[in-house]
Amino acid sequence: MLRVEDRTDIPDAGPGETVATVGALATPALLLDKDRLDRNLVRLSSRMAGQGVVLRPHMKTAKSIDVAQRVYPSGAGPITVSTLAEAEYFAQHGFRDITYAVGLSPHTADRAMRLRKAGVDLKVLLDSPEQAAMLGATGRAAGVTPSAFIEIDCDGHRGGLTATDSKLIAVAAALAEAGVKIAGILTHAGESYGLSRPAALVAAAENERAVAVAAATTLRAAGHECPVVSVGSTPTAHFAEDLTGVTEMRCGVYMFFDLVMHGVGVCTTDDIAISVLATVIGTKPEKGWILVDAGWMALSRDRAPRHSGSTRATVWSAMWPARFIPT
Amino acid sequence: MLRVEDRTDIPDAGPGETVATVGALATPALLLDKDRLDRNLVRLSSRMAGQGVVLRPHMKTAKSIDVAQRVYPSGAGPITVSTLAEAEYFAQHGFRDITYAVGLSPHTADRAMRLRKAGVDLKVLLDSPEQAAMLGATGRAAGVTPSAFIEIDCDGHRGGLTATDSKLIAVAAALAEAGVKIAGILTHAGESYGLSRPAALVAAAENERAVAVAAATTLRAAGHECPVVSVGSTPTAHFAEDLTGVTEMRCGVYMFFDLVMHGVGVCTTDDIAISVLATVIGTKPEKGWILVDAGWMALSRDRAPRHSGSTRATVWSAMWPARFIPT
Repeated sequence: MLRVEDRTDIPDAGPGETVATVGALATPALLLDKDRLDRNLVRLSSRMAGQGVVLRPHMKTAKSIDVAQRVYPSGAGPITVSTLAEAEYFAQHGFRDITYAVGLSPHTADRAMRLRKAGVDLKVLLDSPEQAAMLGATGRAAGVTPSAFIEIDCDGHRGGLTATDSKLIAVAAALAEAGVKIAGILTHAGESYGLSRPAALVAAAENERAVAVAAATTLRAAGHECPVVSVGSTPTAHFAEDLTGVTEMRCGVYMFFDLVMHGVGVCTTDDIAISVLATVIGTKPEKGWILVDAGWMALSRDRAPRHSGSTRATVWSAMWPARFIPT
Repeated sequence: MLRVEDRTDIPDAGPGETVATVGALATPALLLDKDRLDRNLVRLSSRMAGQGVVLRPHMKTAKSIDVAQRVYPSGAGPITVSTLAEAEYFAQHGFRDITYAVGLSPHTADRAMRLRKAGVDLKVLLDSPEQAAMLGATGRAAGVTPSAFIEIDCDGHRGGLTATDSKLIAVAAALAEAGVKIAGILTHAGESYGLSRPAALVAAAENERAVAVAAATTLRAAGHECPVVSVGSTPTAHFAEDLTGVTEMRCGVYMFFDLVMHGVGVCTTDDIAISVLATVIGTKPEKGWILVDAGWMALSRDRAPRHSGSTRATVWSAMWPARFIPT
């Protein structure tokens, strides 16, 4: 990654500041390689277009209108967010088709309905009759018709109902009873982050698809509408061989990739579009260590597998935070 | 921690907002228990006063003038920081005696000297003749006399020179040659975070003291001044039985404590002054899981040891982020 040092097209050193080379940046600094970003965007959008599936990028990763405008250079399209602050931010920048893909609470329902009242087609997520009733009441108080996805658990990773859970129909009935529009079903193959064999990733993608479609089929058989069948994780998005029955794909890390995704096998290190520029502030030659001015906060949680034996490996190791935090 | 629900004295819900109970706060929200904070502050300040050692709190943990004013209710005192943004922030709030305890780079030297020029007694940290020469040149260009600590490595945790390294005298000579004032020596027993037996913690504290004093003795024997002998980590600060030769103690986590410190054995869970208020947004009764709206960013890195078998344990587990991130 350090070869970005050789590039001279880094425009912004911070708000209003311009530097000629990355060497002039105060560190730690986030470097985003626009060419790699664009290549990653095209890679997945063309893959999804080929499968006839809408790509609804998850903007929690980028949290940036500049990146969103590279995703959608000719006008706002569908996006996913993980907080209502993100939803409000992107709505202020013209995005109108937003899925808030985190389980709903009374606080967030109220705030979400304010956005809906303002003309944003904000869809929310839930998996219980209690949430459905609460959302219906919040919508009525705000004078809007809410729209909600039912969360499906495809791999035991986190929340949602299994496709065979009898509560699935109960939640759909509660939504109908509460006057909430069923946007569809939504699932996330979170366990795919822990895989690395291509065959296992293909199987995880097929499982995600099959569970989502089974849940949609159950809903429809019970007389409910289920217009959207939404799946997504960066690994399964890149390994899915068949998306029959799926209408949309959500993921976010694919824009930048990281060492975790490299470990999974979704990208090469040459695809990673973001790096953290750091300054060496100490050395321990006897241990093969360098100490850099980028700590936990700058490096976030991108724990690389440890490498060794090459110049690049030394740099990767330096980015593994456990040994390199300033106090 | 959830019993803070019962308290009605939480004043601020955010900028300008006031709520009567924590239940009315938008989540995730950080809750700081002022009584526990004050108790923790008194516990260590009285301990250090009893040993005749200056306490120089590390403000990287709190990053808050409101907390700093509880540390120093009757006027600004000595503090430690981990970034120059923190140094500038606390200087703007009246702090003048600041140690920047992260290895120096050319960028930070320049910015540090601007603070020194503005009247802040900002001490910096280094461990090489190259940094000493660079700092001297930066100070001359800024028209100020820099002041620097030499970093000592007492336990192989991170940066610094060992007390017996011949480079110690070389760095001191380079500082003198460059016109930089030697503030003293500084070390940090970072490996103490991995301990949990009281005897091992007492030994780590004694090792930190002995290495620091040995380095100071070496400097003085070579004709250099070494006014300050600075040590510090929250575990060693609380377990040191003898601080002979040490002049100051630095630490920051002691203000709030956390589950890591509880695992080390420095505090009880009743001493932990900060908690994260979250809303349950999903349940998995069959797995014993609750899903909360507080993810990696809200919960930071406080990985609790896993508990089980009690109501409190369930809450602790929920705060262990690996299973409870929203997407």
